[in-house]
Amino acid sequence: MAYLNDNYLKLKSGYLFPEIARRVNAFCQANPEAAKRLIRCGIGDVTEPLPQAVIKAMHKAVDECAQRETFRGYGPEQGYEFLRKAIAQNDYRDRKLEVTDDEIFVSDGSKCDCGNILDIFGHQNRIAVMDPVYPVYVDTNVMAGHTGAPDQSGVYPGPVYLPCTAQNGFVAEVSSEPVDLVYLCYPNNPTGATTTREQLTAWVNYALKHRAIILYDAAYEAYISDPTIPHSIYEIPGARECAIEFRSFSKNGGFTGIRCAFTVVPKTLMASTAEGKFTPLHPLWHRRMSTKFNGVSYPVQRGAEALYTPEGKEQVRALIQHYMGNAQVLRKGAKAASLSVYGGVNAPYIWVQTPPGVDSWQAFDRILNEANVVITPGSGFGSKGEGYFRISAFNSRANAEEVARRLQALKW
Amino acid sequence: MAYLNDNYLKLKSGYLFPEIARRVNAFCQANPEAAKRLIRCGIGDVTEPLPQAVIKAMHKAVDECAQRETFRGYGPEQGYEFLRKAIAQNDYRDRKLEVTDDEIFVSDGSKCDCGNILDIFGHQNRIAVMDPVYPVYVDTNVMAGHTGAPDQSGVYPGPVYLPCTAQNGFVAEVSSEPVDLVYLCYPNNPTGATTTREQLTAWVNYALKHRAIILYDAAYEAYISDPTIPHSIYEIPGARECAIEFRSFSKNGGFTGIRCAFTVVPKTLMASTAEGKFTPLHPLWHRRMSTKFNGVSYPVQRGAEALYTPEGKEQVRALIQHYMGNAQVLRKGAKAASLSVYGGVNAPYIWVQTPPGVDSWQAFDRILNEANVVITPGSGFGSKGEGYFRISAFNSRANAEEVARRLQALKW
Repeated sequence: MAYLNDNYLKLKSGYLFPEIARRVNAFCQANPEAAKRLIRCGIGDVTEPLPQAVIKAMHKAVDECAQRETFRGYGPEQGYEFLRKAIAQNDYRDRKLEVTDDEIFVSDGSKCDCGNILDIFGHQNRIAVMDPVYPVYVDTNVMAGHTGAPDQSGVYPGPVYLPCTAQNGFVAEVSSEPVDLVYLCYPNNPTGATTTREQLTAWVNYALKHRAIILYDAAYEAYISDPTIPHSIYEIPGARECAIEFRSFSKNGGFTGIRCAFTVVPKTLMASTAEGKFTPLHPLWHRRMSTKFNGVSYPVQRGAEALYTPEGKEQVRALIQHYMGNAQVLRKGAKAASLSVYGGVNAPYIWVQTPPGVDSWQAFDRILNEANVVITPGSGFGSKGEGYFRISAFNSRANAEEVARRLQALKW
Repeated sequence: MAYLNDNYLKLKSGYLFPEIARRVNAFCQANPEAAKRLIRCGIGDVTEPLPQAVIKAMHKAVDECAQRETFRGYGPEQGYEFLRKAIAQNDYRDRKLEVTDDEIFVSDGSKCDCGNILDIFGHQNRIAVMDPVYPVYVDTNVMAGHTGAPDQSGVYPGPVYLPCTAQNGFVAEVSSEPVDLVYLCYPNNPTGATTTREQLTAWVNYALKHRAIILYDAAYEAYISDPTIPHSIYEIPGARECAIEFRSFSKNGGFTGIRCAFTVVPKTLMASTAEGKFTPLHPLWHRRMSTKFNGVSYPVQRGAEALYTPEGKEQVRALIQHYMGNAQVLRKGAKAASLSVYGGVNAPYIWVQTPPGVDSWQAFDRILNEANVVITPGSGFGSKGEGYFRISAFNSRANAEEVARRLQALKW
């Protein structure tokens, strides 16, 4: 008799984005006229076309596949050397960070990597996540059996939830409880918060002291403009001994539909066997990717490589400027509406406090019904997200300006 | 203190293809002249360019991503409806098999799906694999903790190995031991064997009776020319209640470097909770893919869709004919060399018995050194592969003919 994985049955069925989609659909069906002026600032998906350098490179790669002489079949599961090198050189070595080409693992998405990384860890690890949190970190731990069933408010017993509130600037403080695997995401999704070198150093020191490992999600690093804020955890001394870093081309190159990302696993990173023997993790992730993955589509890897050309870099800069221009417009609009506004300065997400007495879903419904704008209710990201909502800056400038106007016009 | 997954340390380090690469590299360095005439029939990777219909569709999709109006960001994690529908209609409903669009899950590879599928199953399942076996089935079970450490010959205690030998035509007979999850692969990699309707019906009946689940890998179904051989397990009555099917565009459309495949999870397929309650698996796989995957690259999905157009179908047929023409040449060559030859009729792999007293790796070394041809030693696929080697038909016709000549010239 075949058994299923019971842990899946613990997952809350009312997942955030399907529930948003349900409410938006119901609204649109009931209000076909208002539906026409609907503006979506919910899901964090890019809206602008791919950089021309990418388009050009992908066309060229597709043409190569049309000729026997230049056709490519299976590539290396860890990514082509041309892309691993471009990444390691541009994102790390040019910034004086020590990362070798073969510490870069090219993948089809950071979401995949953040989930799959648990494959190489034992089940006895104590997990820590920020609260509010990108739901994938928690859900993949639920699936792996690292939690109990959720309580009424959706909190799963097991993981340590690190509260991120206005009081601590939405930055997770070093855990007072012992933890082994710590998910940190900066610039943060959903709050748009960033971490200082000092705050991140405190975490690295914690990890080194307790031999914990930090899973550092830096998918939004391209949005950092403040030169004092770290782009990579490897800017912190000792991080090569305690951190894995996740990066993505989704939000800088606009690859959400093209699919390419990468994970850095330093060869100096060790974890313990059940018997207490410290062993490098790099060969485990290498084996995991060789066995359960077959590499990223060749034309996609050529497209990603093109992001590192001078034209590509310039085009990415223009995209970031566009979205961060939106973020500024949206911040202003929300502030002018007398709301307390966070994030949106070094991140494409604006984190807004709901007015007194209005909870996250109430704010969602009001903004949908009265302003015809879709945002994301903060409570969908965890209990500490209650009382907030997230506005995504991924949009056209005209839409961002219109959303800012509508937010101001809204009477709470 | 962070713990690693100890099960990874059980994996044999001398994995098949790296070991082949090591020996080939050593040979080429020692024999630079002979290296120039090396012909690779080892790894099962396609050699011919992508069909023109795919090239055209991918160019068009890349151009769409260059314009704001037609740009696509995140797609549905389970695949775009246009592709799910094309698959369900062409591969199933047009062949009078009941499969709905939303039972199709588009992915970036069958290898990934065959590995990831274990996510939704419990650890208490008893696993059965064919022997010889595609190593991914075993290795992913090792990683998941479903086996002990391997013995000297590389056999892991835990799974039931179903012997596939010349005596049973390399077709796994229904297990005499109780098993819950059964990996079947037809046309088979590595033996090239196919299964009759009757043999497959016996397995479906076994699964229905014991509430077991068959994981049916049909990545090579396009190579079947005999009209009596089933292409899909869903041709067998009752299979929708006991089978998941894996399919790939790698070997029909030549997508090994482009990456697209799909998995069929019928909504009627159930497995048991730990408490014995039968529950559908479709929502679990849906949730798995939503949480740990982000969909296949949009241009790739358009490329796959093009395989189902009249031109695409014609171009795939031509590719299959080309490779199967090679298979015929290679079969003849190996037979003329007085070797016992199997497979290669409804599959792109020829499975050859080594001469008496020659084991798989000895045959590999002889063929490499004396014929300058790379094949795959059968023992790399399991203990029952010892005494065989696999020749891949993925090559140019000229190379296939040359390999046939060299095999005949080889004195054993």
